[in-house]
Amino acid sequence: MTDYIFEMTFKVRDYELDAEGIVNNANYLHYLEMTRHEFCTNAGISFMQMRREGIDPVLSRVEIDYMTPLRGDDEVVSRLSLERKGARFIFIQDLYRADDMAQAAHAVVSCVSLENGRLSRGDKLASYFSEFLDN
Amino acid sequence: MTDYIFEMTFKVRDYELDAEGIVNNANYLHYLEMTRHEFCTNAGISFMQMRREGIDPVLSRVEIDYMTPLRGDDEVVSRLSLERKGARFIFIQDLYRADDMAQAAHAVVSCVSLENGRLSRGDKLASYFSEFLDN
Amino acid sequence: MTDYIFEMTFKVRDYELDAEGIVNNANYLHYLEMTRHEFCTNAGISFMQMRREGIDPVLSRVEIDYMTPLRGDDEVVSRLSLERKGARFIFIQDLYRADDMAQAAHAVVSCVSLENGRLSRGDKLASYFSEFLDN
Amino acid sequence: MTDYIFEMTFKVRDYELDAEGIVNNANYLHYLEMTRHEFCTNAGISFMQMRREGIDPVLSRVEIDYMTPLRGDDEVVSRLSLERKGARFIFIQDLYRADDMAQAAHAVVSCVSLENGRLSRGDKLASYFSEFLDN
Repeated sequence: MTDYIFEMTFKVRDYELDAEGIVNNANYLHYLEMTRHEFCTNAGISFMQMRREGIDPVLSRVEIDYMTPLRGDDEVVSRLSLERKGARFIFIQDLYRADDMAQAAHAVVSCVSLENGRLSRGDKLASYFSEFLDN
Repeated sequence: MTDYIFEMTFKVRDYELDAEGIVNNANYLHYLEMTRHEFCTNAGISFMQMRREGIDPVLSRVEIDYMTPLRGDDEVVSRLSLERKGARFIFIQDLYRADDMAQAAHAVVSCVSLENGRLSRGDKLASYFSEFLDN
Repeated sequence: MTDYIFEMTFKVRDYELDAEGIVNNANYLHYLEMTRHEFCTNAGISFMQMRREGIDPVLSRVEIDYMTPLRGDDEVVSRLSLERKGARFIFIQDLYRADDMAQAAHAVVSCVSLENGRLSRGDKLASYFSEFLDN
Repeated sequence: MTDYIFEMTFKVRDYELDAEGIVNNANYLHYLEMTRHEFCTNAGISFMQMRREGIDPVLSRVEIDYMTPLRGDDEVVSRLSLERKGARFIFIQDLYRADDMAQAAHAVVSCVSLENGRLSRGDKLASYFSEFLDN
């Protein structure tokens, strides 16, 4: 069972729907990114602040399963957990339709951290998340 | 002085920035649309519900002045007023950077209302907003 | 070695960049979708036409590896192959920076086909692609 | 009658549609921006190159009239003319549905030019467009 460390709630915006009346697949990646960035802000450092310190987390891989489609007027609960595997930071992310908690999507998102433009071991990024990582 | 009838607050999302580090001009139209739709929901009927009743408000004109640029981490206060001129519904919309209430944008947005796919005089749409319109 | 059945070329649009000056991760899903839809149009039926016939392909899973980042002024070569596994249609999609053919992304995209709003075995969708599928 | 100095053609992408099956209002600003940027590239300098030279054109005002809605499968002809009024560069932009040349939108877009982060008289930006400006 996933051990979530962050949760936020937001509403679907109508411009995120496509002609089928459901949230377009690419916008789920926006939801996932927004959740990761809010998690960082909440952990004490925003992406804008990281960049000023020369830290630049970049996505290396996303796996996403689309389950229940999201529609206009839907509210979304977004949850996240995090683990580190060497230089990679792996976010497990789940989206739920708030109304009935039907799962909308499940994603595994891998990031690495650039420091001053070069791939790093990730220790500086990890330091921001120390309370959430096992070691 | 504008007599606002609705206000909401939201955060800039990092994916809305462009390479200059400021919110891309098109995203302001998303902010304005989101605010109008939230106003409608708040007035008692969402866009999704309108569509099910055969009402389809469509934009006919937007005038927008870009003032202070919005950036990552910014919170935005979005305010709206409404008047009706015959078949046209005119939203006066202002965006402010919450931090110091510097004005980010001023817009005048004109809509007309389709009923069952045909241009209407707008009476049905006006009925949803009766408490906000003068006559 | 992947046996591509479709290729298209397009330019990065500056509004697709984010504050880091590289194409935002979600826009890669737009590129992939656009390529699948152009493939369909090229195979003889556009998504708009499918919808009028009651066929609605929906994404069930995306796996994407981000490799070389795409930037402003970049031209992109997008290639696609297709296989069918029962009710699932699996698109293998690769994006390359045209300049030097560095690989920008590799994706595996799974779709299923709704017919008149219900999950189908996919036979009607497969009929559009018969020249590209083995059986 | 408008004296166009640039024209380009592109296809509507399905993800640009909203739940009403028409191109979302904000995406017209993307179309307009893309056309201005292609015009610049064509005139000899891309936005990415301008930025490297410390030139940063920023939007100050957009007026747009929405006329015939654009839909999936539509091809769009985008035309542009330019005039300078002191520090302001004013783009007159028209979008047409290629099929029957019905006008989709008419826009007047005003820009100013930052040089090294400060508002400028626009002379450097004007130098890129000298063949298109009267004086």
